[in-house]
Amino acid sequence: MTLHPSVAAVRLPVRAALAGLAAGDTVAVACSGGADSLALASATVFEARRPGLRVVGVTVDHGLQEGSREQAERVVAQLAAMGVDETLTARVAVDVTSGLGPEAAAREARYAVLEQVAEHLGARLVLLGHTLDDQAETVLLGLARGSGGRSLQGMRPAFGVFARPLLGVRRSDTVTACLVEGLEAWDDPHNHDPGYTRVRVRERVLPVLESELGPGVAEALARTAGQLREDTALLDGLAGEALARARRDAPPAAGLDVATLAAEPPAIRHRVVHRAALDAGAPASELGRDHVLAVDALLVAWRGQKWIDLPGPLRAIRRDGLLVLEVP
Amino acid sequence: MTLHPSVAAVRLPVRAALAGLAAGDTVAVACSGGADSLALASATVFEARRPGLRVVGVTVDHGLQEGSREQAERVVAQLAAMGVDETLTARVAVDVTSGLGPEAAAREARYAVLEQVAEHLGARLVLLGHTLDDQAETVLLGLARGSGGRSLQGMRPAFGVFARPLLGVRRSDTVTACLVEGLEAWDDPHNHDPGYTRVRVRERVLPVLESELGPGVAEALARTAGQLREDTALLDGLAGEALARARRDAPPAAGLDVATLAAEPPAIRHRVVHRAALDAGAPASELGRDHVLAVDALLVAWRGQKWIDLPGPLRAIRRDGLLVLEVP
Repeated sequence: MTLHPSVAAVRLPVRAALAGLAAGDTVAVACSGGADSLALASATVFEARRPGLRVVGVTVDHGLQEGSREQAERVVAQLAAMGVDETLTARVAVDVTSGLGPEAAAREARYAVLEQVAEHLGARLVLLGHTLDDQAETVLLGLARGSGGRSLQGMRPAFGVFARPLLGVRRSDTVTACLVEGLEAWDDPHNHDPGYTRVRVRERVLPVLESELGPGVAEALARTAGQLREDTALLDGLAGEALARARRDAPPAAGLDVATLAAEPPAIRHRVVHRAALDAGAPASELGRDHVLAVDALLVAWRGQKWIDLPGPLRAIRRDGLLVLEVP
Repeated sequence: MTLHPSVAAVRLPVRAALAGLAAGDTVAVACSGGADSLALASATVFEARRPGLRVVGVTVDHGLQEGSREQAERVVAQLAAMGVDETLTARVAVDVTSGLGPEAAAREARYAVLEQVAEHLGARLVLLGHTLDDQAETVLLGLARGSGGRSLQGMRPAFGVFARPLLGVRRSDTVTACLVEGLEAWDDPHNHDPGYTRVRVRERVLPVLESELGPGVAEALARTAGQLREDTALLDGLAGEALARARRDAPPAAGLDVATLAAEPPAIRHRVVHRAALDAGAPASELGRDHVLAVDALLVAWRGQKWIDLPGPLRAIRRDGLLVLEVP
C-alpha cells in the first residue's frame, strides 16, 4: 500500500522536528482532538517509533464549554488507541478578568500549563498542531493592526520547548490524513463562532482573497511570514545595538545621542525610537508609526520643534544633543 | 470661509512635495481627469502660487478606449479653467505585444512619455495622483505574490523625477475635494471592470477586510508598506555588501565564498542567494523562496547534497568552498 500524500505531508515535517532527539527522549503532543492535532499526534507516534522516542499526549481542558471534560476523555481514548505511551489531561482555569480577552487568556493559560507538563514529564519537545492556514490567518490578523513587518511575521516555528512542525502543511491535509487513518476529528464549535475575528478571517476573508486574487494566497501569506520573521530578527538585533551605542546614562544628561542615531538608516532609527519609547513606558497598543516619525523628525529634521507628545503620557524632547523621553 | 478638511488634506502633502523648488521652477502634474489627479492638480495650482512655480498639466491619451481623445480634451479644458499655465496632451501607443499585460504595458508607456515630457518642459518634478487607497490595493496585490517584504512595500513615494504626494491621502478626500471645488471628476469605466485584479481588490477584497477586521485596514496596509520599504532598502543594501564581500571572480574558481556567506544572518543569506540567482539568469517570476532555501541549505546545512536545480535552467552547486551557479 502506498502512503497517502496527505499522511506523508504531515509526517515529513514531524520527522524533521524530531531529528534532534535521542532514543528514550520524551516528546509531548498537545492535542485538542481537532483534525490538526489528531493528525499531528498520529504522525508523531509513527515517526517516534524508529528513533525510539516516548510520546505523551497532552489535552487541555479549559472548562470553558459544556462537555469539555467529555471531549478531553474522548481525546485520551483516541490517543491511547493511536498508540501514545501515555496521555495527560491538564485542567486549567482561564482568568477571564486578566484583560487579555478570552482567546488570548485561554492561549496564555494553555501554554503555561503545557510548559509545566513538559517540565514534569522531562519532555524535550512539545509539538503544537498549528497549520499553514493558521499561519495565514495570523498574518491577516496582523495586517489589520498594521505595524509593519513585526505584525505580519505570524507564529514562531519554535520557541522554548515548543515547536510547530505543521506550519507549512495545509489544514486540508490534516483533515484528509485523519479520514485516511480513520481518526474521527472533533469540530470545535468555537471554530465557527463569528464572534471571533479569527473565525471571520478563516470563513469570510481568506475565501474572498483566494477567489479574487487566485489560489495560493494562504501559501503566499505563510511564505511572507517566514521571510519577515528573518528580517525582523536581524533588524531588531541591529536596532538593539544602535540603541546601546546611542545611550548616554550619566545624569543629568541621560538620553540618546542624536548624532549617533542620525547616522543610522531610517529602518534602524525608527525601531530605536519605538523601542526607547516602550522602554520609557509608552503603551505598545497606543504607540503608532505617526508618533515614531514625529520623534524621528527631532533627530533628522530638527527646525527647533519644541517637543513631541507621546502616549504614556511621555514627552520626547531634543536637549543638548540628546533625545530625551520624559514624563511631562 | 474656512478651508474644507478634504481640500486641506490634499494640499498639505502637495505643499511639502513642492518645498524644494524655487521661483520659476516648473512642476508637472499628470492628470487623467479622475478625482485623484484632478484634486492633485487643483492643490498644486494653489500651492504653487506663493513660491511662484510654473504648473504644467499633462494628460496621457493611451488611445485604448473609445472617446479617449475627447476625454483628454476635456481634461485640458478643466486644467485651463483651474489656472494651470499650460497643459500638454501626450499620445502614446501601448505595445500590447510586450508580454507585460495591458495594465503594465499602459503604465510603462505612461511613465516613459511623462519622463520625456518632463525633460522637454525642464520640469523639476512630475506629480502623480496615487492615493492611500491605491497603496493599500498595491500591498494586497503584492500579498498574493507572496515574496515577503519586497512584494508588500507598495509604491515608492518618489522615484526619479516623479513624486506621489497623495500616498497618505484617502481617495474619498480627493472625491470630496473635487465636489467642494466644483471639479467634475471623470469616472474611468476601466476602474470598474472586474477583469482587472486591482478592480476586484478595490471593490471586493478591501470592503470585506474592512467589514471583517474593522475599519482602518487601508491605513494599516499603507503604514505597513512604508515601514517595509525602509526595511527592504536597508536589507537590500546589506545583502549587496555581503554579495560583494563573498564574490570570488578569479577563474577557474568563480563563485561565492561559502564561509563568508555562512557567517551572515538568514535574512541576508537568503537575499544574497536570491540576487545571485537572478544575476545568473534565473527568471524572477519563477524563482521562489523554496529554491532560495534549498540553495541556502548548501551553505549552512551541507551534508554532501549534489546540487540544486533552479529555474533558468541553472544549477547551484557547492565546490571547493564556493557556491557556484552555473548553466547545467
